[in-house]
Amino acid sequence: MQSAFTSRRKILRKRMAGRALDALLVTHPANWYYLTGFTGESGALVLDGSGTTLITDGRFTVQARQETSGVRVVLQHGAVMPSAGEFLKGAGGTIGYDASHLTVAEFKAAKQAAGARKVWKDASGLVEGLRTKKDPQELAQMREAASLAVRIVERAARLVKPGVTERELAAEIEYQMRRAGALGPAFETIVAFGERSAFPHARPTAKKLRKNELVVLDLGAILGHYCSDITRTFFCGRAPERIRRWYQGVREAQEAAVAAVRAGVTCGEVDATARRVLSGYRLGHYFVHSTGHGLGLEVHENPRVAKGQTQRLEPGNVITVEPGVYVEGIGGIRIEDDVAVHEQSSEVLTRLTRDLIEL
Amino acid sequence: MQSAFTSRRKILRKRMAGRALDALLVTHPANWYYLTGFTGESGALVLDGSGTTLITDGRFTVQARQETSGVRVVLQHGAVMPSAGEFLKGAGGTIGYDASHLTVAEFKAAKQAAGARKVWKDASGLVEGLRTKKDPQELAQMREAASLAVRIVERAARLVKPGVTERELAAEIEYQMRRAGALGPAFETIVAFGERSAFPHARPTAKKLRKNELVVLDLGAILGHYCSDITRTFFCGRAPERIRRWYQGVREAQEAAVAAVRAGVTCGEVDATARRVLSGYRLGHYFVHSTGHGLGLEVHENPRVAKGQTQRLEPGNVITVEPGVYVEGIGGIRIEDDVAVHEQSSEVLTRLTRDLIEL
Repeated sequence: MQSAFTSRRKILRKRMAGRALDALLVTHPANWYYLTGFTGESGALVLDGSGTTLITDGRFTVQARQETSGVRVVLQHGAVMPSAGEFLKGAGGTIGYDASHLTVAEFKAAKQAAGARKVWKDASGLVEGLRTKKDPQELAQMREAASLAVRIVERAARLVKPGVTERELAAEIEYQMRRAGALGPAFETIVAFGERSAFPHARPTAKKLRKNELVVLDLGAILGHYCSDITRTFFCGRAPERIRRWYQGVREAQEAAVAAVRAGVTCGEVDATARRVLSGYRLGHYFVHSTGHGLGLEVHENPRVAKGQTQRLEPGNVITVEPGVYVEGIGGIRIEDDVAVHEQSSEVLTRLTRDLIEL
Repeated sequence: MQSAFTSRRKILRKRMAGRALDALLVTHPANWYYLTGFTGESGALVLDGSGTTLITDGRFTVQARQETSGVRVVLQHGAVMPSAGEFLKGAGGTIGYDASHLTVAEFKAAKQAAGARKVWKDASGLVEGLRTKKDPQELAQMREAASLAVRIVERAARLVKPGVTERELAAEIEYQMRRAGALGPAFETIVAFGERSAFPHARPTAKKLRKNELVVLDLGAILGHYCSDITRTFFCGRAPERIRRWYQGVREAQEAAVAAVRAGVTCGEVDATARRVLSGYRLGHYFVHSTGHGLGLEVHENPRVAKGQTQRLEPGNVITVEPGVYVEGIGGIRIEDDVAVHEQSSEVLTRLTRDLIEL
């Protein structure tokens, strides 16, 4: 993997040159990993004429030296942003910073320490732009993370029985993930029963599953640094006609949107495809979030798959497709898969039936 | 709990008046919960002359209405900061914002939407200042979170056997937490064996425990929204003389620092107490981080217990005390407890032996 990190830094330096940046201050941990392999949680990464420098505190210096190659590790003195600013004093005059991953207070501290003679340019999205195009190694890793998530859903389905609590099921899911080698869940696992499934981001509670309730499981694993994200909806018992119809609407919307995923199509068009189908079922106003998001080192990345997004899908993109309907007081239904975009095709990474499973 | 949220907002409004703020834009989720009970992950909270308003997207509006009382819930249109800025157009002229929990890009978006006639004042730390003083209900909840962490360490100790991997042990720990009712771990559980224990923030790996290795467990649970944080160090086998001496140094440093915790003492003095003891053991330069941190809704809060901190401890503060020594190539030792500050005394919340346990 060392060579992947080095070549990413090489591409980044070309982009920096294209924007006339003498130095780049990288302040987002996922970007540190992408560019160097460093997995610490605190620090600042600087690319400038003198090379690549990681400034971090005593908790992470040994680890930083072990995890990276071709990177100078500098021990920070005091808080991280004054240290980074101090270091940047010696860099060229124009510094790129990440307005989306730097607080107002941090930016102020870095600027003060670097001195008044620097020009600061917002370079947010520069590294994220590279990250949207996954290389074959990354895609292989994401296939594994997705397969793991599928196995976890299959196992969890066996535990969906009246009396189990949302929290117990979430605990089992995250335990099985880690037993299977995951670093952990990619996000707080969603297990929502009955009316609670009408909350798209429900946190697991002590609620027990009862007969004739919907069950939404939305989970993902971090495996080899990369995230997966899958949702399936079950019914505990035999689903009534209305639920079946809603499920059918979500399923058709999801399958149509997945089929729309290919290089050159705008993200807005993928979103619109799902909405068109749901509107045909008169469920459009129950779909209260966007259709999906990019996936990779983080669970929410570019591109956003939302209304009106004009960004076009490119080979190497990996996105989720996850329409849903949410009816207050009754429940929610969501189906989500991870889809990779290739030159001439697309590939569903989370290969699992979309049939309504009645348990 | 509703009345607790309401009274916190009342105190906050007094502080706002003291700083001549017409409105306050609260952008940190832990602060939303503290002030309203809302547990969603995206939105913006505004306190102004018209009342308390939570602006959030369609994933969280139903939940926001259920979780809060005396709070107007407004559906955001588009991204959250333009929505919040748009709402603030109608507020008074001076707006407090949180420079520590607002990115440069978000701040720019909010300012643009609110219009040029507003004065923006950095009010970072205003809510956090209230949060450092836990009320009796909060302390009761933190005692429970701490007791849970203690039980988990006791159980985990039984699983410390040659052949177990760091990752398996971490998975068991987090599983047991959730089975016991925790929302989840308060931070990524640290399980580090042998040389890896020299990394204060080691991530669990596939490394198997071997005889004659140190074992550092650093874990915490979120229970009823509040965090605990405890560390114990074991030895697999019979510890050699050198390890025993290091352990004794860390233990004495930790016990001396815990004994130094009382209302009126500066945080810097608590930190210095630990350092003095370790220096007496000639271990001072192996202690590479600060002695502790505040604990509450978040695992890292104010006050910071670090070198030179002049902030004085107050009744209601809860801090960790966690000195350690880290020797590259050999291993690390850390002992950590959570300590509450009362009027005339202090209270260790994580009541568990500090003897060196050989397993």
